Amino acid sequence: MMAKGGFFGKILRVNLSEKKVTTSALPDEFIKDYLGGRGVGARILYEENPPRVDPYSPENRFILFTSPIMGTSAPCCVKYSLITKSPLSGTILMSLAGGFYGPVFKRSGYDGIVISGKAPEPVYLKIVDQQVEMLDARGLWGKDTVETQEILQSKLGREARVACIGPAGENLVRYASIFSESHALGRGGGGAVMGSKNLKAIIVQGTQKVPLADEGAFEGYIKNTILPKFRASEKAKKFGAYGTPGVLAVVNTQGILPTRNYQQGTFEGAAAIDGEAVKQAAIRHASCFRCPVACRSYTRVETGEYAGSETEGPEYETLFSLGSNLGNSSLPSIIAANKLCTRYGLDTISTGNVIGFVMECFERGILSLKETGGMELRFGNHQVLGPMIQKIAFREGWGDILAEGVKRAAAKWGRGAQDYAIEVKGLEMSGYDPRGAMGMAIEYATAPRGGCHQRGLIVQETLGVPPLVDRFSQEGKGALVKSKQDEVAVQDALGFCVFVSRGDPMGLEEFAEMFSRATGIPATVADLLKAGERIFNIERWYNLKEGFTGKDDYLPKRFLEQPLTDGPSKGRVVDLEKLLGDYYQQRGWNREGEIKPEKLEELGLKDLAK
Amino acid sequence: MMAKGGFFGKILRVNLSEKKVTTSALPDEFIKDYLGGRGVGARILYEENPPRVDPYSPENRFILFTSPIMGTSAPCCVKYSLITKSPLSGTILMSLAGGFYGPVFKRSGYDGIVISGKAPEPVYLKIVDQQVEMLDARGLWGKDTVETQEILQSKLGREARVACIGPAGENLVRYASIFSESHALGRGGGGAVMGSKNLKAIIVQGTQKVPLADEGAFEGYIKNTILPKFRASEKAKKFGAYGTPGVLAVVNTQGILPTRNYQQGTFEGAAAIDGEAVKQAAIRHASCFRCPVACRSYTRVETGEYAGSETEGPEYETLFSLGSNLGNSSLPSIIAANKLCTRYGLDTISTGNVIGFVMECFERGILSLKETGGMELRFGNHQVLGPMIQKIAFREGWGDILAEGVKRAAAKWGRGAQDYAIEVKGLEMSGYDPRGAMGMAIEYATAPRGGCHQRGLIVQETLGVPPLVDRFSQEGKGALVKSKQDEVAVQDALGFCVFVSRGDPMGLEEFAEMFSRATGIPATVADLLKAGERIFNIERWYNLKEGFTGKDDYLPKRFLEQPLTDGPSKGRVVDLEKLLGDYYQQRGWNREGEIKPEKLEELGLKDLAK
Repeated sequence: MMAKGGFFGKILRVNLSEKKVTTSALPDEFIKDYLGGRGVGARILYEENPPRVDPYSPENRFILFTSPIMGTSAPCCVKYSLITKSPLSGTILMSLAGGFYGPVFKRSGYDGIVISGKAPEPVYLKIVDQQVEMLDARGLWGKDTVETQEILQSKLGREARVACIGPAGENLVRYASIFSESHALGRGGGGAVMGSKNLKAIIVQGTQKVPLADEGAFEGYIKNTILPKFRASEKAKKFGAYGTPGVLAVVNTQGILPTRNYQQGTFEGAAAIDGEAVKQAAIRHASCFRCPVACRSYTRVETGEYAGSETEGPEYETLFSLGSNLGNSSLPSIIAANKLCTRYGLDTISTGNVIGFVMECFERGILSLKETGGMELRFGNHQVLGPMIQKIAFREGWGDILAEGVKRAAAKWGRGAQDYAIEVKGLEMSGYDPRGAMGMAIEYATAPRGGCHQRGLIVQETLGVPPLVDRFSQEGKGALVKSKQDEVAVQDALGFCVFVSRGDPMGLEEFAEMFSRATGIPATVADLLKAGERIFNIERWYNLKEGFTGKDDYLPKRFLEQPLTDGPSKGRVVDLEKLLGDYYQQRGWNREGEIKPEKLEELGLKDLAK
Repeated sequence: MMAKGGFFGKILRVNLSEKKVTTSALPDEFIKDYLGGRGVGARILYEENPPRVDPYSPENRFILFTSPIMGTSAPCCVKYSLITKSPLSGTILMSLAGGFYGPVFKRSGYDGIVISGKAPEPVYLKIVDQQVEMLDARGLWGKDTVETQEILQSKLGREARVACIGPAGENLVRYASIFSESHALGRGGGGAVMGSKNLKAIIVQGTQKVPLADEGAFEGYIKNTILPKFRASEKAKKFGAYGTPGVLAVVNTQGILPTRNYQQGTFEGAAAIDGEAVKQAAIRHASCFRCPVACRSYTRVETGEYAGSETEGPEYETLFSLGSNLGNSSLPSIIAANKLCTRYGLDTISTGNVIGFVMECFERGILSLKETGGMELRFGNHQVLGPMIQKIAFREGWGDILAEGVKRAAAKWGRGAQDYAIEVKGLEMSGYDPRGAMGMAIEYATAPRGGCHQRGLIVQETLGVPPLVDRFSQEGKGALVKSKQDEVAVQDALGFCVFVSRGDPMGLEEFAEMFSRATGIPATVADLLKAGERIFNIERWYNLKEGFTGKDDYLPKRFLEQPLTDGPSKGRVVDLEKLLGDYYQQRGWNREGEIKPEKLEELGLKDLAK
């Protein structure tokens, strides 16, 4: 069944309509060009998804993919990729999640799965050491993500791992996520794609050894080079102390902490929801697979109206989206809301943005009490969080509109609501106000899946990491964003966690060494960066093919026209046209944001693009 | 049902023979005198266990107890206590375990449970928010500890926690432990006591708030004093990096790493099984409830004959007992053996000691190949570990003798085997050779449960922690051990983890503040130390009452007569008589090791003793 030779690229293919399971393999050439997960998935989606396919069509491919290094002894290689067409933005959607699912999947003997079709009734997939079964999930339908995982793991034991959806995915909420433990394949509605296929869950278990081209050299490199780098890294130690919540105080100090639906850049209640506050609420700490940093924390509310709520996290993006962005300084309410989002299977960034958008509309008189069903949707009113999340996940009442995301809701309501919908390409934006970080502005505008901060994440600009760059300056930001986006594409495709992938303790050089030893395909840093550029461009190409143009590289009017009135980024707006002009040039794209033929040629994409 | 007033002391009482469940409460006076867990349990055992009761008699009480501070927001207050009569040593047995079980138990609304009787058929107890059920466990009998926990948690969810036994406890192995996750109530055979009662498991779940006498003052103290101390503590950070395996390199350097059944004090293979080696095998990290240190690691073997073995730990005591003590430098074999001990429910210290004892007997010709069933039981032969552990847990063949512990096995075999049985009061000794640490020698001889290092653990002597004391000196060691034993009794009774309880980041002063605010019973450091002394003495009194005398405060002949021939402790032996003379005097005990009447009077134990 499997092609011979390669150390990576064994694909499980499942057609849910036909209940058909097959396998295929990728040629080494393909792995050299696309590295793993994100890259391989983009290429497959590009080849196999019918043009302009409806994301909820059975024909939309749903692809999970690991990497050549995942499941080995390399630390922090945990991020597996989901690639599909997004029901929220209509773009290519690539999501990553850490934890244990990716490494366990890899050990099943498969490197990735491509799912097409739609099951007539709810099903789940069970993959154990290359044995695949499609099983009845009618009894699981309606269960939340925690219940679903517990039920399925009770059959195979806890070394098996489950990726599943909750009610939000079943109800096709356009920003439903997929959860394994509390690790979400988030943003853009991958959970709804699973829901549209009647696919409740995929449970995997594996005991196969991950094959390595040169095991001795690989293991020696991990032991003698990589692990000592981790031990010596102060950054790794510091990050372990606070995790992502440590970000909040930093961005608040810079005046780019989105507050009250991005109306302000600083939050007066920041201290109540920052890394320190989260640490005080933490009841335990944990790590992903083979991660010595252990940045994950679990929190619990002990007293007050949210007593008893327990959750993993909240991570920074949730603290901003359900906290400052709602004018909400009640950490207990954020913990309780995070728990609900996890159980129902919702993306917290989009959920918080939707509620923030609605609050601004309500305060501005665009929505009446009648329309909100009597809810006083004012900033700071955290009591509405639970009821709102419930309405969204189950599409109850006007939750049916909210489940469509801010762009569609604003279009439906009109009355000027569009001005307060903070999104790019339909994807709600994340926790950095671009008015105080010009590189981030380009990133939001050009991220393949829409308004996302993660595909370049210039920490030198937003998090004060050396070498510092002037965050307000436009100078050189095009080149900077391009280079970081290409670098991130490599890190994503190989499955490494962003928090240890910027040169400290690991970076491109180490990735090249590990990749070469694992696959037997020699690769330099330059080779990897070229592959990263190729990956970013094939994603762009996918979107262009679907009808997106440079006009879709927009930012909400707020960031272009309304200067911030508070904090250290006061008075700033984004000159997006200028920034994009520079960026397109650096990318080898034309002024309409299309990839020039010579760039396609250079990246070996010309034939593909025909 | 419950007595009013007290903030601690609600006892659940279960008689398994009569299927009777009642409750009772402790008076505040009692809590002032015995603080919590270890102390309260000792007092109850003393009062309720019939004199000279057989540990396997239905009348032997099986007591689990929490503390007034457990389950609150105080960090690292996780160690709940088991108190019963030991089937291995015949002494009082007090075991502690961390993790989550204690805090969750506390939140059930009960502070402790006293179990008597014996169920006619296997049962398990289910305790949910003060609702108690005794349920059929016949289907669980024979399951290992991992399976048992998964099955029971699948009923109540993972926030519920299970303490259970494996086959070793069911088969009355005298050093069977009780497991919750991988946290063991170890040493001395508590698991066998559960087995003798046909009690397979206790699952608890709780959502009750832990009552505090002055909640505001307590929470403020945690937030403003305790948590900043943790953040500032370099020790807490360092300990998190390696956990207990970091100890191995230190004690090897001191020449007190037990090697080949305590024949040597240094191990030439130490580097292969030290903290660094364990860190390289680690696949994830985790913490106990509300612990920012997160010293727990999980390891996995990727290649070779033990590939696929995964376990929590191994902790230092296991690295010594199944490693250096067996002349075994194969970390993979230790990981595999640790996994087996966890699943079967065995104490790793005793298991390793039993195997080391057998290896020495085999190498010295006391045991023949015929007696070992053809097994080449030589030091360094790690292939025998799996089969030996299997034989012990199921009492297969000559495993039936090994399951009795080294003291009984040596007595049975005779032929001089006693000289190689490394135990005190029947309890196998732990990972510090007393010839290089004179305080530790006193501790082993006088620990209430037998040859244990934990009831005083003078880190200044063994681990190089300041203020350093000369480990070879006998001077002042009696006073030092007494004071540390009393301090540890406080820490144990309140449930704090030893790794954060020696003044950095917390110590007696902080414990006094927390205890006072939690219980409303004002206590100074002196009050706590007096209670600690009382606890240590009531345990002694229990043992004396059972027939133990100063003659039982022995050490194996090896440590008294055979100087170490290797390493930095070379040439040393223990002058136990001199050490004990000093110690007894410091304790206010007579030369026979009996508590003098005036000491009983001073501690308020005189009436009790009648």
